Amino acid sequence: MTEGDVAAAVEAANARAVERMLAADPVLVDVAVAGDAIQGLGDRTILHAGPPIGWPDMCGPLKGAVAGAIVLEGWAENLDTAAELAAAGGVAFHPNHHFDAVGPMTGIVTRSMPVMVVENRAFGNRAYCTLNEGLGKVMRFGGNDAEVLARLRWLADTFGPAFGAALREAGGIPLKAMIARGLSMGDEMHQRNVGCTSLLLRALAPALARAVDDRERLAGLFEFIGGNDQFFLNVAMAMGKAIMDPVRGIEGSSVVTAMSRNGTMFGIRVSGLGDRWFAAPVEMPRGLYFPGFSEDDANPDIGDSTIVETVGLGGFAMAAAPAVAGFVGAGTAADALNYTRAMEEITVARNPEWTIPALDFAGVPTGIDIRKVVASGRTPTINTGIAHREAGIGQVGAGVVRAPMVCFERALEALAAEMGVA
Amino acid sequence: MTEGDVAAAVEAANARAVERMLAADPVLVDVAVAGDAIQGLGDRTILHAGPPIGWPDMCGPLKGAVAGAIVLEGWAENLDTAAELAAAGGVAFHPNHHFDAVGPMTGIVTRSMPVMVVENRAFGNRAYCTLNEGLGKVMRFGGNDAEVLARLRWLADTFGPAFGAALREAGGIPLKAMIARGLSMGDEMHQRNVGCTSLLLRALAPALARAVDDRERLAGLFEFIGGNDQFFLNVAMAMGKAIMDPVRGIEGSSVVTAMSRNGTMFGIRVSGLGDRWFAAPVEMPRGLYFPGFSEDDANPDIGDSTIVETVGLGGFAMAAAPAVAGFVGAGTAADALNYTRAMEEITVARNPEWTIPALDFAGVPTGIDIRKVVASGRTPTINTGIAHREAGIGQVGAGVVRAPMVCFERALEALAAEMGVA
Repeated sequence: MTEGDVAAAVEAANARAVERMLAADPVLVDVAVAGDAIQGLGDRTILHAGPPIGWPDMCGPLKGAVAGAIVLEGWAENLDTAAELAAAGGVAFHPNHHFDAVGPMTGIVTRSMPVMVVENRAFGNRAYCTLNEGLGKVMRFGGNDAEVLARLRWLADTFGPAFGAALREAGGIPLKAMIARGLSMGDEMHQRNVGCTSLLLRALAPALARAVDDRERLAGLFEFIGGNDQFFLNVAMAMGKAIMDPVRGIEGSSVVTAMSRNGTMFGIRVSGLGDRWFAAPVEMPRGLYFPGFSEDDANPDIGDSTIVETVGLGGFAMAAAPAVAGFVGAGTAADALNYTRAMEEITVARNPEWTIPALDFAGVPTGIDIRKVVASGRTPTINTGIAHREAGIGQVGAGVVRAPMVCFERALEALAAEMGVA
Repeated sequence: MTEGDVAAAVEAANARAVERMLAADPVLVDVAVAGDAIQGLGDRTILHAGPPIGWPDMCGPLKGAVAGAIVLEGWAENLDTAAELAAAGGVAFHPNHHFDAVGPMTGIVTRSMPVMVVENRAFGNRAYCTLNEGLGKVMRFGGNDAEVLARLRWLADTFGPAFGAALREAGGIPLKAMIARGLSMGDEMHQRNVGCTSLLLRALAPALARAVDDRERLAGLFEFIGGNDQFFLNVAMAMGKAIMDPVRGIEGSSVVTAMSRNGTMFGIRVSGLGDRWFAAPVEMPRGLYFPGFSEDDANPDIGDSTIVETVGLGGFAMAAAPAVAGFVGAGTAADALNYTRAMEEITVARNPEWTIPALDFAGVPTGIDIRKVVASGRTPTINTGIAHREAGIGQVGAGVVRAPMVCFERALEALAAEMGVA
């Protein structure tokens, strides 16, 4: 192939990739027990955020969450023996992304945890994500004490089954239109989900009323969802995974199908390169810290939540959410518009169904093209929470982080080789 | 007093007026039966939107709503005999504003209707507004057939008592912070209330679960609120009335305390001029029409809902709601910003608690000063629904309308006379 032929082939492949993204029909259909729903997630197996990693290389909050999950599952009696078990190779670690799943921050998924199920009805695939635990000291930020585990048990025993029953009663909640509304309500679906959390509660309230017979229990469910503006984040993540999975494996496509971090390495996957990870050390978010914390306390970038940027939300939709720009320390309302405009330079298309009123209803930038990233020198912008670098503490802030350029350079070299270009 | 003394006295009075507006603490506390809650609202009495008006001068939708309300109350057997009764002087008409109340569009309130109660806890006063009936053929747009009356009966018998019980169970819902959130979610609280409607449902869902024992009935309540993005409009209106009433009667103040239309006349009240109305013929909204309708079908401007502009929301907060600018035919996102900026020119202050992210958290323009309106030649911008000019049909569109300049000129002359200025 000539260079022109290759370029045309990549363009055509990318058009197909974006076509699949736009054709997706993600529906939140159920809450299931992870061990039942996720094939291969058995005893002494722990799924985590980001590309593959072993215990010795894990950061503090990831080790903390792993130890907590081991105690939760009863594979060790306490956090110390849990860490010993993990260090001795007593549990198997795998990325969520290898099991149709995603998880925010540490992203731990083990067999007893309830997971939300998003079905992409246009393609038939399903994706999974845990329920959002709320704010403060939680497992996704490395929390692992008795309070954290008790909340996870309540989610598994009480909240998850009721929420799942309501979703089945409602026949599922279509997510595409809900995201569209959320974008007109100041959400970017990564660091701001107040609109979609409220819309989801509103949409599901009748079914919850029908599915839960105990009034006090029902009130408790409403309080849990209503008490956490970020409840919808995990829904958006499962949706992102459900949208992107059918985009994998399109020969010649330079579109990114996953971006993900384990707190040590940042990895990307590219459609034309199958399931290979192209990884580089994660960067440190720049942002704002909660009172009493500073960058010295921060863990580097972590979590599968970058799947929302992969579908054109989060940092890519910053223009929809001028309020979040302030929260993550990204500047003024004008800066928020510019963040989104900059992402147009590295993407294939605009999403005509997910539009931003403040940009006169221009669609969100969709389909990250590794060629454009490398050529422009501009890496994807990601809105992120910031975890404390030590286990057991929790969230310390929120900020903006860039995907490392090296991931895209290496992937582009691999794609060139694949296409027979030197 | 010299001219300078007068100006200083007005400035000081206006500062007090805005101080009272900003000190308000409006809380949605209950739903009550209008005849019980509103003093003096008895048999054969009908409250309507706007300044005082008699049957002969009423527009089509207002006459239609009056006839429907008479049948609803059982004062006549059908719409024809109801109209005859009204024409013969068989019912007394009064503005809502004379009875601590407000109502959208035709604004009809009669004794059996449920009204929401907003208490301004900083000043102890209460204000009332009917429950929003939903979209389509409804009494506020002049609808009056069996379907319209059946819905009103359901609101009185089923929805109102349950919603009231939930509000009491919750100890009331503070509205000031909810409006602040709504402004960050694309609401301007007149033609767009999707954020606050969702937040209100979310806030009240636990109390509703505790207050309503029948699950199917509870589901029906959630469906009614969730099915109507404008549900919150009537809450915002009662809030506006509760905020503005304590601002009345400040000697020398040129701040507008009410703007209101009955479909024929537009009236304003000014703090330093007590409860006098300064009225002029209403204007025709410019806007967008639903399919099958045009400006030929439109009734001129109508409703008490302009109380939300009076407190700095609606057209004054257009910058918060670029999506509404499109809906009411007001142009682009940049135009939306300019609408709000223009209202700064005719107001006394910015509200530091109600801020607009797209204006880098500048507060909404607050306290309309009739002097500035007359001096600038710029009248208040109002976002409004548009009713069909004939009775019984309903909403045909939404648009933007201006308050007539004559109201402000006449009020300014009266204030000058009051202050002893030629």
